[in-house]
Amino acid sequence: MSESRLVGPVRVVGVGLLGASIGLGLRAKGVEVLLADASPTHLAIAADYGAGRPAAPGDEPQLVVVCVPPDVTAEVVASELAAFPNAIVTDVASVKLAIHDDLVARGADVARYVGTHPMAGREVGGPMSGRADLFVGRPWVVAGHPGISYRDAAVVDDLILDLGATLVELTPEQHDRAVALVSHVPQIVSTLMARRLIDAPHASVNLAGQGIRDVTRVAASDPELWVQILGQNAAPVIEILRGYRDDLDRFIDALVDLDAPGARRRIAEELFGGNTGVERLPGKHGVDRRYASLIVMVDDRPGQLARLFNDVGDAGVNLEDLRLEHSPGAQVGLAEIFVLPEVQERLTDELAARGWRIAG
Amino acid sequence: MSESRLVGPVRVVGVGLLGASIGLGLRAKGVEVLLADASPTHLAIAADYGAGRPAAPGDEPQLVVVCVPPDVTAEVVASELAAFPNAIVTDVASVKLAIHDDLVARGADVARYVGTHPMAGREVGGPMSGRADLFVGRPWVVAGHPGISYRDAAVVDDLILDLGATLVELTPEQHDRAVALVSHVPQIVSTLMARRLIDAPHASVNLAGQGIRDVTRVAASDPELWVQILGQNAAPVIEILRGYRDDLDRFIDALVDLDAPGARRRIAEELFGGNTGVERLPGKHGVDRRYASLIVMVDDRPGQLARLFNDVGDAGVNLEDLRLEHSPGAQVGLAEIFVLPEVQERLTDELAARGWRIAG
Repeated sequence: MSESRLVGPVRVVGVGLLGASIGLGLRAKGVEVLLADASPTHLAIAADYGAGRPAAPGDEPQLVVVCVPPDVTAEVVASELAAFPNAIVTDVASVKLAIHDDLVARGADVARYVGTHPMAGREVGGPMSGRADLFVGRPWVVAGHPGISYRDAAVVDDLILDLGATLVELTPEQHDRAVALVSHVPQIVSTLMARRLIDAPHASVNLAGQGIRDVTRVAASDPELWVQILGQNAAPVIEILRGYRDDLDRFIDALVDLDAPGARRRIAEELFGGNTGVERLPGKHGVDRRYASLIVMVDDRPGQLARLFNDVGDAGVNLEDLRLEHSPGAQVGLAEIFVLPEVQERLTDELAARGWRIAG
Repeated sequence: MSESRLVGPVRVVGVGLLGASIGLGLRAKGVEVLLADASPTHLAIAADYGAGRPAAPGDEPQLVVVCVPPDVTAEVVASELAAFPNAIVTDVASVKLAIHDDLVARGADVARYVGTHPMAGREVGGPMSGRADLFVGRPWVVAGHPGISYRDAAVVDDLILDLGATLVELTPEQHDRAVALVSHVPQIVSTLMARRLIDAPHASVNLAGQGIRDVTRVAASDPELWVQILGQNAAPVIEILRGYRDDLDRFIDALVDLDAPGARRRIAEELFGGNTGVERLPGKHGVDRRYASLIVMVDDRPGQLARLFNDVGDAGVNLEDLRLEHSPGAQVGLAEIFVLPEVQERLTDELAARGWRIAG
């Protein structure tokens, strides 16, 4: 592990998922982390969890990372700038232009502020969901502005590189348009699909396969957070949603008038367009490259998962992650086990030797 | 492994992913499988692969399973009914009502036909992607109709149970409405989202995270197949798409007029509705409300999960579902255990008595 280039302590304000993960990641690099949170309970949990120590009077942070909800981010950044006149202050909120404009309007010292946004998250929140490797290999945007010097902003680059993320430089406007497309509109599209399930018969939802699970996964996200995000990035979101709505109207029209000349060709072209769009996404779909997986069939009886994990433990292998798939009424479930790639083959052999059916 | 109840040979027409998987699964149960395909190359690959032997003149199948694209399914089913007057014929196409109606219009002997649809698949096709366990634990719909007797249809139930799937009985209309909701509309929603990426700047698509990858995964599916599916199930798809479009219009209106009284509350309600919809999906993602859950803290060491599941098993409790929150940088993980509500309190007490820390 390379040593951190950060010299002074880093103060993390707000110890939810992102704040706790930043603390854990910095602690793993030996950086001193000072934690602050409006909730004494969250603060105590994050400290117990290993994300840093509670901040104390007299602390002199080199860098302050504000990880609070978007609608209070500008206010907290402004007060941190005032409280720590020698520190650089950054934030990790999902929108950048509105926060920068708000700080300028407040007369804050933006020569010591630069906003950032790590493209990492989970549907679950709170300090207990933090993980030191949350940012590894993920893009982390620095939304630079002319008011801060290159030298002063460098400490924020150090933070990002310490946490294993990939630094991406964009203007606040470019950032907000980009996340409208790759995050905010997908959230709305997913939410509206999930809404269609509310009144559906049991028999219908019980046929759900992986497709609709994937399309609706992010619809489980926190509504209060998303109202704030969408409220601060409405203009680019609206523009993209209108294009989506026009495509949808055209699709419906083609389906309604299926026997019109060219209707089926239009539908095929829309579907081909979807293929083309997906191909623009970088990297392989949905696979965490750090882990290899194997799928084990498990009888739906008490004790079977225990037996499986006993056997995995006996093999000396640590589970990195796990997914359990179970269809209502089925006698068998599928346990997808994620392990370090170097032990995958050996574990497969050992489990097969103990009578487990490996499905993939 | 239980013995098959199928007595005569099973003829599989079309040896793509589904046909090859059916052949492999039946061969594993010792059933004789006769393969047919318009492509001699596919046929030879499937036979070499172990899915059965090429069909020969004089074969007398007990059951014919038609696994060809939806737009030729009715035609092939009709010709199989005529060619094998003692056999029951079924198909596995993704739509059921249009095929049944087409067969009736052709004057086919539907007293020997019942359509089915296994809710299983992969994005990849062809005989080489077949797997004997493709259907294990998956729902498999039998779309019964009044024209076939219970006794004659029983051989199709045997097929489904042989392949380890869970039999679900629906009318063709119920089936088509269900798959419109959980498969066809999600396909369109995903496709239209992916289309928005076609002309996006590199800097934008490079910020793509897991959210948009999940939302757009099925947009990579085969357009030619999907034109056929949507063309045969247009009415229920249109109805659901129109509801979706109305929700979308309302969402856009609220974003456009964000400062109007109640606009933010309307957006929050839409987002909450998405949460509620996801919760209706069974298993894996989204929590099935039939189950209660408890969260147990687990030390990040080999064998700890095994010890936990041993203790759950000792308590005589069956795990219905499970999620693991693993935090590589932290010293503990969280195992969320889903059980029947009536055992939740007892299990909580028993685990606490054995020294487990229950986090929720």
